Amino acid sequence: MSLPKDFAFTDYQPYDFANRRHIGPSPKEMEAMLKVIGYDSLDALIDDTVPRSIRQEKPLEWGAPMTEREALDKLRETANRNVKLVSLIGQGYYGTITPPVIQRNILENPAWYTAYTPYQPEISQGRLEALINYQTMVCDLTGLDVANASLLDEATAAAEAMAMAQRVAKSRANAFFVDENCHPQTIALVRTRAEPLGWQVIVGDPFADLDPVDVFGAIFQYPGTYGHVRDFSGLIARLHQTGAIAVIAADPLALALLKSPGDMDADIAVGSTQRFGVPVGYGGPHAAYMAVKDAYKRSMPGRLVGVSIDARGNRAYRLSLQTREQHIRREKATSNICTAQVLLAVMASMYAVFHGPEGLKAISQSVHQKTVRLAMGLEKLGFTVEPEVFFDTITVHVGKLQGVILKTAVAEQVNLRRIGDDRIGISLDERSRPVTLEAVWRAFGGDFEVAEFEPDYRLPKDLLRTSKYLTHPIFHMNRAESEMVRYIRRLSDRDLALDRAMIPLGSCTMKLNATAEMLPITWPEFSEIHPFVPADQAQGYRHLIEDLSQKLCDITGYDAVSMQPNSGAQGEYAGLLTIRAYHRANGDAHRDVCLIPTSAHGTNPASAQMAGMKVVVVKVSENGDIDMEDFRAKAEQYAENLSCCMITYPSTHGVFEENVREVCEIVHKHGGQVYMDGANMNAMVGLARPGDIGSDVSHLNLHKTFCIPHGGGGPGMGPIGVKAHLAPYLPANPAAGEAGAVSAAPFGSASILPISWSYCLMMGGEGLTQATKVAILNANYIAARLKGAYDVLYASKKGRVAHECIIDTRPLAASAGVTVDDVAKRLIDCGFHAPTMSWPVAGTLMIEPTESETKAEIDRFCEAMLAIREEARAIEEGRMDRENNPLKNAPHTVEDLVGEWDRPYTREQACYPPGAFRVDKYWSPVNRVDNVYGDRNLVCSCPPLEDYAEAAE
Amino acid sequence: MSLPKDFAFTDYQPYDFANRRHIGPSPKEMEAMLKVIGYDSLDALIDDTVPRSIRQEKPLEWGAPMTEREALDKLRETANRNVKLVSLIGQGYYGTITPPVIQRNILENPAWYTAYTPYQPEISQGRLEALINYQTMVCDLTGLDVANASLLDEATAAAEAMAMAQRVAKSRANAFFVDENCHPQTIALVRTRAEPLGWQVIVGDPFADLDPVDVFGAIFQYPGTYGHVRDFSGLIARLHQTGAIAVIAADPLALALLKSPGDMDADIAVGSTQRFGVPVGYGGPHAAYMAVKDAYKRSMPGRLVGVSIDARGNRAYRLSLQTREQHIRREKATSNICTAQVLLAVMASMYAVFHGPEGLKAISQSVHQKTVRLAMGLEKLGFTVEPEVFFDTITVHVGKLQGVILKTAVAEQVNLRRIGDDRIGISLDERSRPVTLEAVWRAFGGDFEVAEFEPDYRLPKDLLRTSKYLTHPIFHMNRAESEMVRYIRRLSDRDLALDRAMIPLGSCTMKLNATAEMLPITWPEFSEIHPFVPADQAQGYRHLIEDLSQKLCDITGYDAVSMQPNSGAQGEYAGLLTIRAYHRANGDAHRDVCLIPTSAHGTNPASAQMAGMKVVVVKVSENGDIDMEDFRAKAEQYAENLSCCMITYPSTHGVFEENVREVCEIVHKHGGQVYMDGANMNAMVGLARPGDIGSDVSHLNLHKTFCIPHGGGGPGMGPIGVKAHLAPYLPANPAAGEAGAVSAAPFGSASILPISWSYCLMMGGEGLTQATKVAILNANYIAARLKGAYDVLYASKKGRVAHECIIDTRPLAASAGVTVDDVAKRLIDCGFHAPTMSWPVAGTLMIEPTESETKAEIDRFCEAMLAIREEARAIEEGRMDRENNPLKNAPHTVEDLVGEWDRPYTREQACYPPGAFRVDKYWSPVNRVDNVYGDRNLVCSCPPLEDYAEAAE
Repeated sequence: MSLPKDFAFTDYQPYDFANRRHIGPSPKEMEAMLKVIGYDSLDALIDDTVPRSIRQEKPLEWGAPMTEREALDKLRETANRNVKLVSLIGQGYYGTITPPVIQRNILENPAWYTAYTPYQPEISQGRLEALINYQTMVCDLTGLDVANASLLDEATAAAEAMAMAQRVAKSRANAFFVDENCHPQTIALVRTRAEPLGWQVIVGDPFADLDPVDVFGAIFQYPGTYGHVRDFSGLIARLHQTGAIAVIAADPLALALLKSPGDMDADIAVGSTQRFGVPVGYGGPHAAYMAVKDAYKRSMPGRLVGVSIDARGNRAYRLSLQTREQHIRREKATSNICTAQVLLAVMASMYAVFHGPEGLKAISQSVHQKTVRLAMGLEKLGFTVEPEVFFDTITVHVGKLQGVILKTAVAEQVNLRRIGDDRIGISLDERSRPVTLEAVWRAFGGDFEVAEFEPDYRLPKDLLRTSKYLTHPIFHMNRAESEMVRYIRRLSDRDLALDRAMIPLGSCTMKLNATAEMLPITWPEFSEIHPFVPADQAQGYRHLIEDLSQKLCDITGYDAVSMQPNSGAQGEYAGLLTIRAYHRANGDAHRDVCLIPTSAHGTNPASAQMAGMKVVVVKVSENGDIDMEDFRAKAEQYAENLSCCMITYPSTHGVFEENVREVCEIVHKHGGQVYMDGANMNAMVGLARPGDIGSDVSHLNLHKTFCIPHGGGGPGMGPIGVKAHLAPYLPANPAAGEAGAVSAAPFGSASILPISWSYCLMMGGEGLTQATKVAILNANYIAARLKGAYDVLYASKKGRVAHECIIDTRPLAASAGVTVDDVAKRLIDCGFHAPTMSWPVAGTLMIEPTESETKAEIDRFCEAMLAIREEARAIEEGRMDRENNPLKNAPHTVEDLVGEWDRPYTREQACYPPGAFRVDKYWSPVNRVDNVYGDRNLVCSCPPLEDYAEAAE
Repeated sequence: MSLPKDFAFTDYQPYDFANRRHIGPSPKEMEAMLKVIGYDSLDALIDDTVPRSIRQEKPLEWGAPMTEREALDKLRETANRNVKLVSLIGQGYYGTITPPVIQRNILENPAWYTAYTPYQPEISQGRLEALINYQTMVCDLTGLDVANASLLDEATAAAEAMAMAQRVAKSRANAFFVDENCHPQTIALVRTRAEPLGWQVIVGDPFADLDPVDVFGAIFQYPGTYGHVRDFSGLIARLHQTGAIAVIAADPLALALLKSPGDMDADIAVGSTQRFGVPVGYGGPHAAYMAVKDAYKRSMPGRLVGVSIDARGNRAYRLSLQTREQHIRREKATSNICTAQVLLAVMASMYAVFHGPEGLKAISQSVHQKTVRLAMGLEKLGFTVEPEVFFDTITVHVGKLQGVILKTAVAEQVNLRRIGDDRIGISLDERSRPVTLEAVWRAFGGDFEVAEFEPDYRLPKDLLRTSKYLTHPIFHMNRAESEMVRYIRRLSDRDLALDRAMIPLGSCTMKLNATAEMLPITWPEFSEIHPFVPADQAQGYRHLIEDLSQKLCDITGYDAVSMQPNSGAQGEYAGLLTIRAYHRANGDAHRDVCLIPTSAHGTNPASAQMAGMKVVVVKVSENGDIDMEDFRAKAEQYAENLSCCMITYPSTHGVFEENVREVCEIVHKHGGQVYMDGANMNAMVGLARPGDIGSDVSHLNLHKTFCIPHGGGGPGMGPIGVKAHLAPYLPANPAAGEAGAVSAAPFGSASILPISWSYCLMMGGEGLTQATKVAILNANYIAARLKGAYDVLYASKKGRVAHECIIDTRPLAASAGVTVDDVAKRLIDCGFHAPTMSWPVAGTLMIEPTESETKAEIDRFCEAMLAIREEARAIEEGRMDRENNPLKNAPHTVEDLVGEWDRPYTREQACYPPGAFRVDKYWSPVNRVDNVYGDRNLVCSCPPLEDYAEAAE
């Protein structure tokens, strides 16, 4: 049939995810943008930006990309390959019930999950309140004074506690004692961490083997991994006599019934809040906590939320003591903690709000009651059950029956824990039902009904808790769902996240977190798999991990990937440990020098120090590139002991350095390895591969380049890729208890990997490559638009930036007294989160738009930036007051409008600068937050709230 | 072991849904509230409120209520009993892809689904914009001038179109012609509707059987249910010659390729927008559309969104022509349409925004292309495929092979449509994949690959579309997901829904829509089942429907339930048709008088009229009760022809009338039936049963009492319960095409029934009863707190209201010129949606808090109301200006604050009246909307938007 021309069957793909959904600018917009930059084609721009010398030869090619629906079908099929049994394995991971109101309104809500770390406190008041609730909850339950929010996992927290103990202990002993009742992964991570730092780790029975004189600290598990509930007060008192530090790793649910670590006089408590409503997720993510005595608060690693005031004197939350370990001490640091687990900490804190102290206690009692019942049945069957007193975990002596019972249990749809070759561990949780207990009994040959047993407490009477907890009104609000929904909504409305505006944070890569990528993570077949189930029950996860690893190898040019590191910094650390292990295996244990340019991210030197390396700093030249002369000189100087160099590519200044291959060659020539930081991988995918350029190992921030949302400050994932020669030295399995593991779970935060995998499936190789090109286009477009108004620092010889650009606001400080802070806060009035401030260069802003932002949104941002420049000009030219102006008074709030207006500019100017939406304007809930006040008056738990006075028990 | 007292195992149930999550006030709060009302116990209050004479004897008892997790497990198990095949049955229901960004951010987002109908336009601007997009989309695709938003389903829309045709046609003929190619359910509903109104329905081939002289209108299906695509222009011209009205039922996806109904000069177009991203859901809910020529816009049923201005002259949306059919004409009405399908219309409109015209066209082309391929394969196999030209649907002649092929198809995981006993219908859709086509071929004995066939168009060339559609910039925005997410968020932020504040709408029962109830509805095992699958594929649904029906029987005292009506008004209509059929079966066809008190909801008389009844109005006495004398007199007067009475209980005045049993007895004595409107069932569940009191039939608003969210103005569900003698006359199966069905699908909007079922499972009988008591407590508490400040109209002899109370604002009009509108708008400043305005009594507010609101929230509301009274007093006492005051100027917006402030009260007074949150205040996006302007200048499609000027194709 002959048809009108536009009726020909079209190639238009309405569900083309890469080109129509993930990548922001439309073809037409790209054309217009290229024109502004001065190019005819995207490829021409890329050719001028990414040096020919580093470009990869073959394009990424995995066949046709999937539509959202095809990818979801693929994910569904993969999820169904996981076998969802009831896991009573325990060992730090427990069944829990996520209240649906929390699941849907937090975990599945982009207002929460697309937010960034709350460095800009004015636009983060909601999650800061949730986090201070978390800190308060942890302080209350542990009986300690100050808690952070939060750490990566319990095992990492234990290692951090050891490092902190070493810093603050009066004892100068060189050993750390670890309770043999600690979870194996905790022992493993403490060993991993101690070894490069030269600390001895003594694992044993604290009541038999611990001599306080020998150690700078000790950690005890409470309850122990095999179930023991013991009082460590006496041991702690003895530790204190020698100036050593006592750490207790405690289960917060048990603490609802048990004497707190604080009441035992522990100095530090750590643990996991996973069982407070966060699904096990095949290992993570969940939030670990650390709480310390007041005396040690300024030595605590991780992020700490505190109370301050804003410019009007109203209460405002903020991150306290922001200048932390790795920033101050860099190569002397003993912690590189950066990413927290904000989204999960928020969930755990809401779980505490949802239940209040009565609820937590009731859950805790119920878990204990069920465990006692279970033990009674097993005892009736003639088994020896240990220990005598326990909370939720028991160990059963089964001798040669171990295999049979475990197998029968699986047939009963229950996973138990294999301990040694003659025991079985069982941990109950709030999900355990009567049928679960009966199934376990059947696996042991018993045929009982739950009602046959009348349980009594089997907790040590002296350890029953007498101190109160969760006394703050927030934990006593009326917990009807209508109130919970509204409280969660009110908090989220205070914050500015990606669901309302672009977040142009340089180096942070705040790109789209597509809904299709997020949907699978709350499917029970992904979220409810215990990390230590037999491999045949996690075939879906294994397939996903293998395929994603292969794709990451294709992308990076590496030969092997470890998914274990659950943050970028953890990835750096793991990568350096891998290099270290390689050198030692080659008899080069003396190779311990790590070259790092001054421009490196603070975690680089901190990670190197933690990996037992000596950091040698390399200069950076005027234009931001590595000073090749200095680099060559240092490499030669330390050739004998050269372990590696750490470089970031493209550089932290946002430039593709031409000489990167040469850097790698120099290092290799001197026997060193090259660690290429993957933070800027978003500028390389599909165009260049670290492995081709000469790098031996990199970490990849899946929460940057591969679409895992930032969650308001975590979770993250930092898998590492390595060349074949390093593959044998990748992180070990944490469950084994031996040194060499870096995270508590074998595959880190496995349950968020479906996000990155979906992203790769839906983009395909071509789509990923296009994304990289457009990320570079967007950054160069911004640089072009802002040029003239601001100096764009650092560019390639051809004047191009990579996927981000740095603009200089220091001239404004000189000419108009306008600081980078003023610019950042004024951007809030315009409806934007500020770019990265003063990093890598003080007084500058680093802008990264990512490929996901449209031209319209980028233009809105540029107009805001240009208007800010004009405001500064008005000050320069005396048309505006130097102190009392919209920049200094930003952000403007509704409170400003309601009150008297005595400013030399109009309300209209204040509130609707270019960029700001009119009807849909985002209003900062507080005026500018006073940082100094907050650090001087450190308050890190919930302040009294009249609002909740009408408690509703 | 002897333990401290508070360590005894506790009865506290942390997951007790009924008492801790669904019901708002805590026990402590209830105590305080009872004190204010003057009672010692809740039961004492109830005894004084609900007459002993009507109380039910046995408590509701279904065993222990479930926790959220138990209910979700039960729902999962039930869902898994549905068999999810690929359904190519068509017949008005098609596979569609819901873009994940729409699913998560609209369908699963309480900001959208808990909103009410946009009667208060200031706080509904977001969904009003989405709905005007919907209307624009419908106008564009149909080529007509004005579209509404929206109707219940295509079949209902067709019946409405017939009724409208009858109203507006110049022809006075008494018959309506129905194309035999209409879907069977459409034919069924047209027959149902026509019969009581005395209109003849002629079903036939329009090209052979239609004589325009005989009819007042005709409806054609385009494409037809068996696939035909025909040009109706000639027929329409002939209809117009006789003054008859032409209706086309058109598939909007087909219209992306086909000549529009408007281009054929049709007067009315109707259809379903289901396949625009709304899952089939075993029959619903989805939004149907109606579009008409400009000349008929004021006769169109349903809700119409229009453009107006606010008090500052800014653009604002609103519902236009609000005073519609059933309000104006009451017992003369030929439509009772009330509930729309807002949530689904919003989804469909966003689907159009998501795809734009290119996307819709590409999808439409792809569906056609696949259908042509399918036909080519079947033809190659030697089958006769009809019709020659088609869009997405073909009919295959299979003779005696019908059973074998259908069965084989099921084995291939595909459902086809059985037509007669020798044909099979197949409809493809955007989900159909090559493997689907290949599976169908296999079922027909073929073994082809899709690539073997090179398809060409098989659409009639003359019917190819030449007119443009979706030309408005909103359909050309950059459709990157980041933009979609932000657009959806901006719209939802403009609106005030239950996720931010209580919505105390009398009679609307805006109670908690718990997340646990909402989770299952988007599970594919519920959402992707075609309504006409064989019963054995819907065992889960059948079980759910049976169990829920049984529970509703237990609650109401009825013997049978029909789940078919998909709105409350539809339920009324279905109930009256049941009574009508009963009388006719008894030889009492003359019984056609329906007694209705003047206080009845407007849908009551409209439904009665539609059911062919004569409405006789009964007086209401001063105190709001039915005037018994008048009732008795009318019943006697019309005894001969008495069909029924319609009463609401407790009354629309919110009172439990003592004499309700007597009313029922009188009616029965005279041979009539009692219809008890279930709108106020929330005051009865567990305490009294309509069936016990003497009622014969009721509808139940599942979207009120049983927790289906209002979705911003729909969906709803209005199942009816009847006594055994009426059971044989319940609605028939619509798929049969015979009169007697009231909705397009056998079980109405089945996919939202899991919400009501979960609610019952989690509450248990005791919880439901407690909910009723607390609903009454909350209402009486409000009445007690507002007493003195306002007159509480209507109460029982003991001074008690039922679950709602009416307060009188008329005295304020007299004393201070403050209207009920002023109070309502001022409540927006306080952060509340207004109570029901001027219904059932003009100048009053009817307040219904429901059981889900906490004391704190209710107190916030009461404080707002009391403060408003004080503001009125200030006017009364001359302390405040009569015209320029916070009440008259409400709602106050940020625009007011930014502009010059020349008002005789402060900004603080304006914006922070008691009740308003400080940091978390809700700001109305517009000032008071000008209703008169909007009706005078009727604009009902998207106005030009500069905002979208930078289109991004």
